Amino acid sequence: MPYHSAPLDLAFHALSDPTRRAVVSRLSEGEVPVSLLAEPFDMALPSFVQHLKVLEDCGLIASEKRGRSRWCRLVQARFDEAADWMEAERRRWTDRLDRLELYLDKTKEDGEGNGNPV
Amino acid sequence: MPYHSAPLDLAFHALSDPTRRAVVSRLSEGEVPVSLLAEPFDMALPSFVQHLKVLEDCGLIASEKRGRSRWCRLVQARFDEAADWMEAERRRWTDRLDRLELYLDKTKEDGEGNGNPV
Repeated sequence: MPYHSAPLDLAFHALSDPTRRAVVSRLSEGEVPVSLLAEPFDMALPSFVQHLKVLEDCGLIASEKRGRSRWCRLVQARFDEAADWMEAERRRWTDRLDRLELYLDKTKEDGEGNGNPV
Repeated sequence: MPYHSAPLDLAFHALSDPTRRAVVSRLSEGEVPVSLLAEPFDMALPSFVQHLKVLEDCGLIASEKRGRSRWCRLVQARFDEAADWMEAERRRWTDRLDRLELYLDKTKEDGEGNGNPV
């Protein structure tokens, strides 16, 4: 099976939490210092930092110390890996439905050609 | 925060396992009886069925007994929910980069207009 991809496992695990998804959403608009990133969440800072650690460990975000602040940013490549997987599956699914539709149309045409009601 | 979406939590959790992602991949090509679905996996059937249960509990797949077989199929709506979330985030990110690029182009043009080297 070509699916033993630990980075994808960790990325989807990271995205299974609403706080971590909200962080990803916020960072998709640009980099933010941790203190500002934490503000909207009703959560103790150590718990919030733990969520950031999960996101950073799986490579979805990166952080950097600048002066007295730590800034976070989204890492597009890892996010794309997960998003690409989902889109590839969706495409397979819609391709299959398209093929099914073509087949049904053809069956209907053939039936009409033979003078059989459908 | 508008992110407290238990179904999304469960869907991403379900996708964090390579066996469950492989099942989703297989089912994106059409419905399959459990026995056939289990075949490529080097895993005891009860463990495999446990993975199917995680996928079914979060609504990513559905199953139905027909005669002596249980057939599984992908539930597109739940899959789309997760895939749509990822695509929306990706769009926000690329929109931001597009805006940034426009801004930099404009800054460069203005600079050239003033005869300043960039």
